[in-house]
Amino acid sequence: MEMKNIFANIPKDLDEEVLEQLVKSEHISIERILSKGHQSPESGWYDQEQNEWVMIVAGEAILSFDDGSDMTMRKGDYINIPAHKKHKVKWTDPEIETIWLAVFY
Amino acid sequence: MEMKNIFANIPKDLDEEVLEQLVKSEHISIERILSKGHQSPESGWYDQEQNEWVMIVAGEAILSFDDGSDMTMRKGDYINIPAHKKHKVKWTDPEIETIWLAVFY
Repeated sequence: MEMKNIFANIPKDLDEEVLEQLVKSEHISIERILSKGHQSPESGWYDQEQNEWVMIVAGEAILSFDDGSDMTMRKGDYINIPAHKKHKVKWTDPEIETIWLAVFY
Repeated sequence: MEMKNIFANIPKDLDEEVLEQLVKSEHISIERILSKGHQSPESGWYDQEQNEWVMIVAGEAILSFDDGSDMTMRKGDYINIPAHKKHKVKWTDPEIETIWLAVFY
């Protein structure tokens, strides 16, 4: 059993979003996602097979949903996005790294 | 979809550990656990049917394992504890709340 830290090993160069799988099993995966000013492409709705519980560990982001609503998420905020609930990342803080913790199940 | 915050609604009175289930599905549960100076009883090994991925969101704790080893965990530290790996909480910070985020799967 190895202990790691969610704030460690953040690349200096975040030209693209960085996904790191922390746990992968038959039914779930746990991922750390690093963003810095990234957003989904205009047409890029996520339409996922799995439910996603996601929390902002650091930084700030705005999620958009296909009903036209936006949700601003700050440190410690979490939501549970049901499978096939279309959503996208409208904005992430361009100044600091946003660390997402996502559980897909 | 309701947004909540992992740092919110922390009871002033933490005489006992407080568990809050954030997600429950067929295969997983996600829980917030609040500790403040709590520890497992001397004989109280956890011997769980499920794997547990657990992270310290705030505070500090020491986990003990039945091979005699201890692990000090601080903010952002996470480990993956396999099912039936016996462990217990040896110590949590008595001065501030320790917030654990646990995914049982």
